[in-house]
Amino acid sequence: MNDTPDSLAQLASIDPGLFDRDVLATWGLSDQAIRFLVHAAITLQDLARQGISTRAFDTGLGLSIFRDQSTRTRHAFRAGCDLVGLASEEMDESSSQRGHGETVRETAAMIAFGTEAIGIRDDIFLGEGHAFMQEVSSAVDEAYREKALLARPALINLQSDLDHPTQAMSDLCHLSRTWGGLEGLKGKKIAITWAHSPSYGKPLSVPQGSIGLLSRFGAELVLAHPEGYELEAEPMEAARRFAAESGGSFKQAASMEEAFAGADAVYPKSWAPAAVMRERTRLLRAGEKAALADLEKAALAQNAKHMSWECDEAKMALTKGGNAHYLHCLPADITGVSCKNGEVSKEVFAKARLDTYREAAYKPFVIAAMLLATRLQDPGAAIARMAAKKAPRRVA
Amino acid sequence: MNDTPDSLAQLASIDPGLFDRDVLATWGLSDQAIRFLVHAAITLQDLARQGISTRAFDTGLGLSIFRDQSTRTRHAFRAGCDLVGLASEEMDESSSQRGHGETVRETAAMIAFGTEAIGIRDDIFLGEGHAFMQEVSSAVDEAYREKALLARPALINLQSDLDHPTQAMSDLCHLSRTWGGLEGLKGKKIAITWAHSPSYGKPLSVPQGSIGLLSRFGAELVLAHPEGYELEAEPMEAARRFAAESGGSFKQAASMEEAFAGADAVYPKSWAPAAVMRERTRLLRAGEKAALADLEKAALAQNAKHMSWECDEAKMALTKGGNAHYLHCLPADITGVSCKNGEVSKEVFAKARLDTYREAAYKPFVIAAMLLATRLQDPGAAIARMAAKKAPRRVA
Amino acid sequence: MNDTPDSLAQLASIDPGLFDRDVLATWGLSDQAIRFLVHAAITLQDLARQGISTRAFDTGLGLSIFRDQSTRTRHAFRAGCDLVGLASEEMDESSSQRGHGETVRETAAMIAFGTEAIGIRDDIFLGEGHAFMQEVSSAVDEAYREKALLARPALINLQSDLDHPTQAMSDLCHLSRTWGGLEGLKGKKIAITWAHSPSYGKPLSVPQGSIGLLSRFGAELVLAHPEGYELEAEPMEAARRFAAESGGSFKQAASMEEAFAGADAVYPKSWAPAAVMRERTRLLRAGEKAALADLEKAALAQNAKHMSWECDEAKMALTKGGNAHYLHCLPADITGVSCKNGEVSKEVFAKARLDTYREAAYKPFVIAAMLLATRLQDPGAAIARMAAKKAPRRVA
Repeated sequence: MNDTPDSLAQLASIDPGLFDRDVLATWGLSDQAIRFLVHAAITLQDLARQGISTRAFDTGLGLSIFRDQSTRTRHAFRAGCDLVGLASEEMDESSSQRGHGETVRETAAMIAFGTEAIGIRDDIFLGEGHAFMQEVSSAVDEAYREKALLARPALINLQSDLDHPTQAMSDLCHLSRTWGGLEGLKGKKIAITWAHSPSYGKPLSVPQGSIGLLSRFGAELVLAHPEGYELEAEPMEAARRFAAESGGSFKQAASMEEAFAGADAVYPKSWAPAAVMRERTRLLRAGEKAALADLEKAALAQNAKHMSWECDEAKMALTKGGNAHYLHCLPADITGVSCKNGEVSKEVFAKARLDTYREAAYKPFVIAAMLLATRLQDPGAAIARMAAKKAPRRVA
Repeated sequence: MNDTPDSLAQLASIDPGLFDRDVLATWGLSDQAIRFLVHAAITLQDLARQGISTRAFDTGLGLSIFRDQSTRTRHAFRAGCDLVGLASEEMDESSSQRGHGETVRETAAMIAFGTEAIGIRDDIFLGEGHAFMQEVSSAVDEAYREKALLARPALINLQSDLDHPTQAMSDLCHLSRTWGGLEGLKGKKIAITWAHSPSYGKPLSVPQGSIGLLSRFGAELVLAHPEGYELEAEPMEAARRFAAESGGSFKQAASMEEAFAGADAVYPKSWAPAAVMRERTRLLRAGEKAALADLEKAALAQNAKHMSWECDEAKMALTKGGNAHYLHCLPADITGVSCKNGEVSKEVFAKARLDTYREAAYKPFVIAAMLLATRLQDPGAAIARMAAKKAPRRVA
Repeated sequence: MNDTPDSLAQLASIDPGLFDRDVLATWGLSDQAIRFLVHAAITLQDLARQGISTRAFDTGLGLSIFRDQSTRTRHAFRAGCDLVGLASEEMDESSSQRGHGETVRETAAMIAFGTEAIGIRDDIFLGEGHAFMQEVSSAVDEAYREKALLARPALINLQSDLDHPTQAMSDLCHLSRTWGGLEGLKGKKIAITWAHSPSYGKPLSVPQGSIGLLSRFGAELVLAHPEGYELEAEPMEAARRFAAESGGSFKQAASMEEAFAGADAVYPKSWAPAAVMRERTRLLRAGEKAALADLEKAALAQNAKHMSWECDEAKMALTKGGNAHYLHCLPADITGVSCKNGEVSKEVFAKARLDTYREAAYKPFVIAAMLLATRLQDPGAAIARMAAKKAPRRVA
């Protein structure tokens, strides 16, 4: 339990430094901010488990913009808004009307009236999602500064082309709870590896989010993928820097087996080559359907060369005690269940399944923590007051 | 008025036995549960009429999944959630992605975080809707048992291939209010009959819901339809059993006239032959458009043979005092208004119209009652406390 | 600030006379109602700026129906509902199912259960939007009178073919704040002019809403447009009447230049000729795509003859002090930014941009004021109580 008087006093003493700011990439946040968010998310979950209300707003809106499909994160955003008392609404933006420049600036201001937070998913077009979020961020900054807005809504990245902070933070909460706190990550070997999938075009933001965040706490991080599946420079540099600063390490391995050897946790997950994603962006823009079909065919053929990158029982046997924690953002491509040759074998997934649900269960609380941290001046004290007040979530 | 001290004390004394359970088919519920829900729905409506707040949740989500079009029940679910303080959200599930097996199990868990209730409409494919709801129910059971969920959301059937409990319960509330309580149903003759419609493919769940529920309270239930329009075995057996247990009867008649003779209430409503619905399911699955068009043509030709099954003034004259209560779930096919030859004549519908609105007006309160009964340990006491507290719904 | 004790006492003393009524066209409302709404909207904005809760409903729904695209007003309706504590939902009505007669009457009653307000946008088909809203209004009147509804939801026009009251009222709030109250409009010259746009089919409701409202307070209103772009008779007559009654004037000018000369505020905005809109309605109904394309071509050619109707720096120099307030409902067609030849030059818009955001910022509060005025018996006293209570919007 994370809501002991000591723990709550500690939480109330941390200033995450996020008031009136955004959560766009975890590597842009301080260690203190990350520690606060993990601590806050777990505490909010504990309060919710006890039926204690975590409402922080009497009224207020949380708005989301999804430029890609989403079931899990869409629900988690709504649930996170609801946890703190915000009504959520989704802006319907047809993909043909991806605004630019003036349109983005103006629309951002118009949808910010009465809005406490804007969650955005824009992960499809490599080189664009993060840039779009920054454009919206500048627009609400200006509108607030110029008194067109009464409050400055926080932007929450619900997956960009660079990072997937609500996912990575959920993974971190899960590991923190599993290993007795963030200190428990120190010295743990965590393998982030590519895995085969019979699909193409999966975003790079999940592995990038993982290396950019899990490198902060002294873990021995290992990244492995076939040639051609390199990650973007920005999260790679962040991972190197964080590993050095935290006394951990960030290494690359040539195979899933090498990465798994002695690992405490493994995260086998498919992603697309950045070159393919960039070309795909260009072709989607140009509307070149035939070339897109050719690209997909070639990308799948490239994937098929690496079918052995599957997390099966033999590879799991190489991990520490043969029993590493299996992480996944879901849905996983499961061999013999959801596809013929996937990221993970049926047997390995069956054992880990319910644990991946528990991993996912942090996301609404991570989002709630981000909402409180960005919208309240003293979010830790607010959570401590919720814990003290013990107002029931069920009021009848 | 149903909120007298006596009535409220009585309500508080009933345990519906629905805590942490679902409402999938009324024939799976105890008489006590049904009595509670009717009593609770009518009481909640009385409280709302007096402007008294019926909020039971400070925060919390009610999620809906509509696998078929809906205007009335969709709004009623939102209004019912709102009455008890839940924010509602709708999961957008494209029809091409009707999940199965692993996908359903996992998605159900993922959308259950922070969710108090999941309302599902899945009525198109005979043999599948109820099964899907059971799949979701098992999934949330498991996720809750395994501590991936903090609470177990209740499933509310918003119309399946078998039953339409929120509709049937609204009809029952209406009859109960009209006849001075559920005891008033004893000995009343209620005619549930097929009626002609210039459409095909109307679900069987409305008449099935009616016979499966209105048979419980000692009424003389009569079912009539042309040959080939038989209802499914499960609700037919439930109706026979309930009629025997409650001292009423459940008989079949060969014509609308025979069914209407001396009836206290009539429910003339079109539905499709089960064989047509099953073949339709198969063809929809197989994507056989030409065969579907043929099936529709044949089904409409079959309907057209029974155009005389219209509820007109001549047939209404056969009912008790020529003045039976006309029931309908709306929208009705009205001859000369919404179609050439429909379920009901213009004259009969004109007289009954506003009464069908009042019948429909119970649905949000029925849903609110289901939410309280499935999510609170002592829902009757909670309603009694609302009545005592008299917190206004308008707070400014 | 508008929330001084004097100002609040004054607000509490005005009876807008809107309880259980609708807001369909501002020219149907009394001067007192208009004064109340402006005063209330500005006061609500002041309270929100101070972080004071403006919640008036513990639970309740605000439902919207959009028969045309909307980003700004859609968000403003949700934000306005949220400000007073209503959950908002949108009814999804496919454009192919524009109901008539019985269907509208019945559906209106069904979606009114538990609903405090229904916001409708129906601006595309000239001659139909306002009529549809009146149909819905009659339907909820009847259902409430006949006790099928517990409360009568208010209809809020979110843009019809005739008026755009939430926009016009936002503009009026902006001018009132700018000029020190509604009295400040007296004697001010306001130019409402057509402007060129490379699009066709823009609704007439914005200029009609402007002349029908801004004529009430003694301003010198001037309308200018090329021949063929005449506005509808109803708002023109209202403007003439209000100008006469209020001691102002309502004149027409032959050019943008003439209208701008000495103006205190200008509102240059494109709209379509009524004849084109009527023909378009007929062709859309008939599904005549080729004829529609021809109509568009002809309409754009007609527009192109008036490309000089652009609000540029030279024309702005003609206004009072060369510095008139520029009004626009957004988005504007900006020359060299969003199109080649638009309503306004890049330079003029750049100067006015942030002020148009502030103009738009009133809309959620205008809607909140309309909700309170139509749904509370004594809305001014309710707002005064909010101001006295100072309940924080952030509760944690």
